[in-house]
Amino acid sequence: MRMFRTLLTAAAVSALLVGGAQAQTAPRAKSGLKALFAGKPAAPAAPAAVPVSPEAVAVGLRDKALRDHLAWDITEDLTTNIGPRLVGSPAMEKAKDWGVAQFKALGFTNIKVDEFAKVSWTRGEESAWLMAPYAMNLNPVGLGRTVSTPPEGVEAEVALFRTYAEMIAAPEGALKGKIVVITQPMVRAQDGAGYGVAGISRRAGPVEAAKRGAVALLIRSISTSDSSVPHTGSTANGEGVVTIPAAAIGVPEAEQLERLSAKGPLRIKLKLQSSFDPKDVAWNISGDIQGSEKPDEIIVIGGHLDSWDVGTGALDDATGIAITTAAAKLIGDLPRHPKRTIRVVMWGSEESGGSSDAYLAANKDGLSKIVLAGESDTGADRIYSLQVPAGSLDHPVIKTATRVLMPLKIYLDRAPAAGGGADISGIEGAGVPVINLNQDASRYFDYHHTADDTLNKVDPVQLAQNVAAWASFLYLVADSDIDFRALKPATPAAR
Amino acid sequence: MRMFRTLLTAAAVSALLVGGAQAQTAPRAKSGLKALFAGKPAAPAAPAAVPVSPEAVAVGLRDKALRDHLAWDITEDLTTNIGPRLVGSPAMEKAKDWGVAQFKALGFTNIKVDEFAKVSWTRGEESAWLMAPYAMNLNPVGLGRTVSTPPEGVEAEVALFRTYAEMIAAPEGALKGKIVVITQPMVRAQDGAGYGVAGISRRAGPVEAAKRGAVALLIRSISTSDSSVPHTGSTANGEGVVTIPAAAIGVPEAEQLERLSAKGPLRIKLKLQSSFDPKDVAWNISGDIQGSEKPDEIIVIGGHLDSWDVGTGALDDATGIAITTAAAKLIGDLPRHPKRTIRVVMWGSEESGGSSDAYLAANKDGLSKIVLAGESDTGADRIYSLQVPAGSLDHPVIKTATRVLMPLKIYLDRAPAAGGGADISGIEGAGVPVINLNQDASRYFDYHHTADDTLNKVDPVQLAQNVAAWASFLYLVADSDIDFRALKPATPAAR
Repeated sequence: MRMFRTLLTAAAVSALLVGGAQAQTAPRAKSGLKALFAGKPAAPAAPAAVPVSPEAVAVGLRDKALRDHLAWDITEDLTTNIGPRLVGSPAMEKAKDWGVAQFKALGFTNIKVDEFAKVSWTRGEESAWLMAPYAMNLNPVGLGRTVSTPPEGVEAEVALFRTYAEMIAAPEGALKGKIVVITQPMVRAQDGAGYGVAGISRRAGPVEAAKRGAVALLIRSISTSDSSVPHTGSTANGEGVVTIPAAAIGVPEAEQLERLSAKGPLRIKLKLQSSFDPKDVAWNISGDIQGSEKPDEIIVIGGHLDSWDVGTGALDDATGIAITTAAAKLIGDLPRHPKRTIRVVMWGSEESGGSSDAYLAANKDGLSKIVLAGESDTGADRIYSLQVPAGSLDHPVIKTATRVLMPLKIYLDRAPAAGGGADISGIEGAGVPVINLNQDASRYFDYHHTADDTLNKVDPVQLAQNVAAWASFLYLVADSDIDFRALKPATPAAR
Repeated sequence: MRMFRTLLTAAAVSALLVGGAQAQTAPRAKSGLKALFAGKPAAPAAPAAVPVSPEAVAVGLRDKALRDHLAWDITEDLTTNIGPRLVGSPAMEKAKDWGVAQFKALGFTNIKVDEFAKVSWTRGEESAWLMAPYAMNLNPVGLGRTVSTPPEGVEAEVALFRTYAEMIAAPEGALKGKIVVITQPMVRAQDGAGYGVAGISRRAGPVEAAKRGAVALLIRSISTSDSSVPHTGSTANGEGVVTIPAAAIGVPEAEQLERLSAKGPLRIKLKLQSSFDPKDVAWNISGDIQGSEKPDEIIVIGGHLDSWDVGTGALDDATGIAITTAAAKLIGDLPRHPKRTIRVVMWGSEESGGSSDAYLAANKDGLSKIVLAGESDTGADRIYSLQVPAGSLDHPVIKTATRVLMPLKIYLDRAPAAGGGADISGIEGAGVPVINLNQDASRYFDYHHTADDTLNKVDPVQLAQNVAAWASFLYLVADSDIDFRALKPATPAAR
């Protein structure tokens, strides 16, 4: 908090703005704006009746957000006082109560907790050793929802593949009795595109290795770092039933195994213990900033409250919760709410799966009233581009938004928004228009799903830029009549 | 290896040289130089009899070293095929044999293995939990040579201090029954100066905390990183007898405990198991590039062969072994060896202590013949300055060395060399002149003594710059008559 105040000096704010942001505020609106953002009623002499344009309000929200510390405070509170919060853990139950308390304290209304059934998984003891050519301790982390090894572990010769494709090329039964090691690296990319490519080893690797006869799978962390800290994450999300134990090892260990395997055979011993609770539950929680004119038209935004059990889930996704909550709260503090309702959802089981389906099921009768949805779930580094629903590029609201966001160094990507987030994929699939406020993921996958996803990886200046973008964009859409469904072209938009 | 070849392109070599390096080679010496560094005898027509100045040979060595991959190969071999090599481990015994085999294979002569007694210490199971205000797994690493906890561990309320000085300010008995946590951070500095300041918590912390009644000590990693990977390192090197168990935790965990302790009391449970072998041994190993005219005048250089048991001891200190061995080997490959002998020592117990005393004891009768000593033990990032013994700044050999090193971006620091290295501190204390080839330590303490001290942290381009500096500087001193002892001023040199 102290750090935040220090960092967000006027110079930092200036750096975040390309310049000239204030110039976009109509001069005649200045007094009204001052009143709006002074945090107190306008003095009697102020021309309170001067109309303030939505753009001017959005600019004011944006600039206020750059100096606001609520998102930092939320992130610090959730990661410090709740800590890691895996679905099924006591911490996750505490997080649910924390979320409700946050909404209340910040003035949200219509607060709801929707419970849904969710089989939970709890990590136990984990260890691994290189046994040959020499003994060396390895540091594995079981993939989320992996099965256990026998209590004494599993020891076997290694079949090492430098790419997933090479493992897949092995015929069924060819890897009988082996521990398969896949060392495919992940490519660093601003848009995070390397994650999907490398992640196949984690998602489908255990099922595919088992088909070929393997007794266990070790993968190189799905990570862009050079760190020894391994990355977890769910395996086999709908891509088959996992029957063999699977874990990740850090980047240097994977590279060590690569080098050693080029010289001769390797043996590894792996022990993984964990348990499932088939009768567990999770919760999606929401709170509203109620619209002033069309409260039944709803913009759904949010992040996910659950995290992995390693680290404290700071970038994934305490900051997503913090960014969207803080943005909505800034809007809620306006003397007049925008026309439409802004609903912040804290989804409760993104990492373990299930929030999206549960949210769709709970809202299936009201989908037509959700005018737009968006999710913040790629850390807290700066947003660099906006994508909007197909057909809306040239709408005046989007043109205004583009102007307001440019000083934050955010451009309008002309490709239509798609894949708005894991937790809104259900409602997106059912026709709800989505936006993408794309965060720079260059650094995100250095920490994601590891013990290093902690508060000290959050940059408060970039965090504030996120809040500024969400608050100003949301306000413009919420205070407008834009109907994204009506704008949708009959055929897919050309890029 | 493939990476090395790719990286050391001509462009990379040019980048390492400020420019004009070739111009410093006397034109008339060119043909002779070509013959020296072509790796094959000069063609019959070449003017082989043209005298080549020591400076020209040093320049040739420097530029050849920038494209040489022996140091990389040594580093890869030691870290991959031996791995971590703590004193007392089977790997350390393998490393000793590896060292002898390296010297033989590279043409060193007078190879010696000096055994000395060394109590060894072996890490066992280690774990820690935050117990209150909530349960959270911590990831400790026992400080080297710590005592164990009882098998069931030790659990106690925490007394947290943000600086070592605050802990010292507590009177004796004031911390009775507490687990002391010291979260003092380490300052990043090019010359590594932050290490000594922060390291006091590790070196003296357990003894001082025990005096005040503590039952265990946890320290924030002595690290400049933001990583969750904790740093080990010996405790109580001659600063008292350790009686309480002591471990380090990663930076984010230390910061989490700081934040939580500001809100209320903390409890921690710590389990550390380890064992000592009082009858163990270690070895200092050496090999020579024999001098051509004054073989009994010896320049002692080297690194340490042992490492911690976490990581693979790449930066600490496989690269020191590699840099000094490769530099000497390049000199050994010259058609005429320099006048004096260059002796490379692989010290065998730096991390656990003892190499320096053993080396002094084994060489006490020959100290007057050691004309200079130097050690490479701060990783493999670029050398940025040279320090020479007091009184020698204006000697022609040093002036020549300064010219030869400048294109590598190395300046002559006018403060006299001191503290040449942990393994030569014994002979330095007994009057042997030393040099410092100061490596940039800005990045070193991000990885030092952690599981992240691995091959992928070694930058081959910077590694080669180190070899170039050592090879060219060593050659100039070895082929000279400079007598550092005779140059030493009667009073300490003014800076």
